[in-house]
Amino acid sequence: MGYLKSWVESANSPETDFPLNNLPYGVFSTSGTAPRCGVAIGDMILDVQAAEAAGLTGTGGLLGQGAWNPLMAAGPATWAAFRRTLTDLLSEGAAGRETLADMLHPMDSATLHLPITVAEYTDFYASKSHATNVGTMFRGPENALPPNWLHIPIGYNGRASTVVVSGTDIRRPNGQTRAPDADVPSFGPSRRLDIELEMGAIVGTPSKMGEPITTAQAQDMIFGYVLLNDWSARDLQAWEYQPLGPFQAKAFATSISPWIVTRAALAPFAVDTPPREKELLPYLSEDFPGNYDLHLSVEMNGHVVSRTNMRELYYSAAQQLTHHASSGCAMRTGDLLGSGTISGPTPDSYGSLLEMTWGGKNPISLPGGEQRTFIEDGDTLTLAGHAQGDGYRIGFGRCTGTILPARI
Amino acid sequence: MGYLKSWVESANSPETDFPLNNLPYGVFSTSGTAPRCGVAIGDMILDVQAAEAAGLTGTGGLLGQGAWNPLMAAGPATWAAFRRTLTDLLSEGAAGRETLADMLHPMDSATLHLPITVAEYTDFYASKSHATNVGTMFRGPENALPPNWLHIPIGYNGRASTVVVSGTDIRRPNGQTRAPDADVPSFGPSRRLDIELEMGAIVGTPSKMGEPITTAQAQDMIFGYVLLNDWSARDLQAWEYQPLGPFQAKAFATSISPWIVTRAALAPFAVDTPPREKELLPYLSEDFPGNYDLHLSVEMNGHVVSRTNMRELYYSAAQQLTHHASSGCAMRTGDLLGSGTISGPTPDSYGSLLEMTWGGKNPISLPGGEQRTFIEDGDTLTLAGHAQGDGYRIGFGRCTGTILPARI
Repeated sequence: MGYLKSWVESANSPETDFPLNNLPYGVFSTSGTAPRCGVAIGDMILDVQAAEAAGLTGTGGLLGQGAWNPLMAAGPATWAAFRRTLTDLLSEGAAGRETLADMLHPMDSATLHLPITVAEYTDFYASKSHATNVGTMFRGPENALPPNWLHIPIGYNGRASTVVVSGTDIRRPNGQTRAPDADVPSFGPSRRLDIELEMGAIVGTPSKMGEPITTAQAQDMIFGYVLLNDWSARDLQAWEYQPLGPFQAKAFATSISPWIVTRAALAPFAVDTPPREKELLPYLSEDFPGNYDLHLSVEMNGHVVSRTNMRELYYSAAQQLTHHASSGCAMRTGDLLGSGTISGPTPDSYGSLLEMTWGGKNPISLPGGEQRTFIEDGDTLTLAGHAQGDGYRIGFGRCTGTILPARI
Repeated sequence: MGYLKSWVESANSPETDFPLNNLPYGVFSTSGTAPRCGVAIGDMILDVQAAEAAGLTGTGGLLGQGAWNPLMAAGPATWAAFRRTLTDLLSEGAAGRETLADMLHPMDSATLHLPITVAEYTDFYASKSHATNVGTMFRGPENALPPNWLHIPIGYNGRASTVVVSGTDIRRPNGQTRAPDADVPSFGPSRRLDIELEMGAIVGTPSKMGEPITTAQAQDMIFGYVLLNDWSARDLQAWEYQPLGPFQAKAFATSISPWIVTRAALAPFAVDTPPREKELLPYLSEDFPGNYDLHLSVEMNGHVVSRTNMRELYYSAAQQLTHHASSGCAMRTGDLLGSGTISGPTPDSYGSLLEMTWGGKNPISLPGGEQRTFIEDGDTLTLAGHAQGDGYRIGFGRCTGTILPARI
């Protein structure tokens, strides 16, 4: 499918993240109204709750609850039909534009909310460069990559209650840390506050307890993707993570982009995961390109400090989801799966400050002579991402957060 | 408060788990009816949804949703008022018995359901004997107790989607394991399937993102306790848990008892946590007895294989909850906090088969000459617990599960 033109003029700019080929799903409000489902098109948001109420979407009440979960639970056939309907309604030359025009709202005057009710949040560890870098710093070069890493999509359960939408300010966490020369820990604001550049896969349809899934089934269950910033307090993490993994170091906040880009929109940019270095067990094999060629960047205070690509991920979201359900773990509509930090092979492609500054030893430079090891109060961190088509881009918008001082 | 007598005769037996002093909260159904909130009294269940509809409870619609979450969210003053009302209604000599008698259902003909909608599930690691035993087996005696253990209530996030009520059959999980002499892992049924005897604390009232809580506030937030069996696949766990903690080894099932015993019912049995071996940081100090003198047991196929006591826990639930929120993590109505396996100092008081059999080296004997290292298909494991009052007991009922063969 080539580049599609819309009667919404701003959707036809090669610079927009939201051409007709994209149609990502969010939740928005305008002054004095309740949050409702919307679809981004150029610099506008189509109020699809209103479109549904007008009988234009064929979704029978799925869009009226201020979150995408009901449509997600309805499954891939419904997703495909809805996307076809939206594409028809917004195509250049479509009939009925007058009716729809009243349901368009300028994005820059809307407030964006979490697009889904997050059921549970799981975070993976699927970039080999990241796992190697962090392993080297935490455990030394001999033990950098854990022996299971090339066999298992390693993951851990995170905290869903603190998943927030882009634009939400993030309070610097307090916590226990132990200084290298101290006998006992102390409690106070994290001094090694970091980001993790990740993609989040959103589970649309559920699986049952006790019933594993194949990678093909897992792929069908995935509704779409968001940008995800897994904020991390490295000093808390280093002290707490043995033996049961990260806990409070990651519990205070996870930011996601407001727009869910669907698998359908990303399909032209699907690529294989990197070549296997060890043969995978059969339950993890996939006979489809499960990864995406997505250009990703990290900005600190408006200055790009890293560029990488989703292609760096060794495991696809379908492989992660399959592993997640392999024990019989029930997966739910609204589960959010972080990919793990996406780092490329060089410092200018690392997905965390921990790696970019190599544990704080090599500060990064910002314009105006400023330097950073970790995040300071007032800093704004932004993730961005897009797939590049021929004359258009499929963008995720931005995932941003500004750090507030810790509570004393 | 001494022993209270009820006009429900079976509640006055010294053997019942459910005297008038207890009044635990569950969700039940009888043939052809939807699950609804009920309170155990002797061998009966009082249908409090019906009692509320008849205007007897003063709870204004909080009990009509087939789960206790709405009442939990209403807070301690509402909990106390409701308990006073229930106590009055069911006391010996109370007026209005005829009306209430129609709302009593025999427990043995009712089906019991999950009493709450579980928001998120967190599991802690608060028994020193357990942490030392497992640490010795997994990492050797030199590294048994992690250096942070005496300072932090160590915990990790678990999976809420597979928390099930007692009586639910448990499917043996498949997963990756690596034999000690193998180069690569294999995938198949767990061969080291285990239980973990724990208590579960249920969070009633929420806390806000970015806002830590004190131990006194945490104590007020706790609605009550259940028995909790954190089923564990030790062979999966050993291979997967480094560096990010347990994942699929614990994701397939967690069983809880059907009855939530309130803090009010347990108050006469409150005890201090064990003496501190290292001074705690101030945010974890508590000036109230945060633990309980609860007798706990594990049965395998009807045979008691271990007896221990909740007093073994080094950290109270209030301390765990305070630590959980210390980074600014928002806690929610319906969060379930597992205490961690409760092991005493001797093998007959260990809370897991891993410990009782010391990693499978010392089988335990069952009547009839059978032996077990880990759980076999068809085995039924049961937890039980109660506090012993003067002539009465505050019981939790039983938390049971039978193992089904793995899916091939």
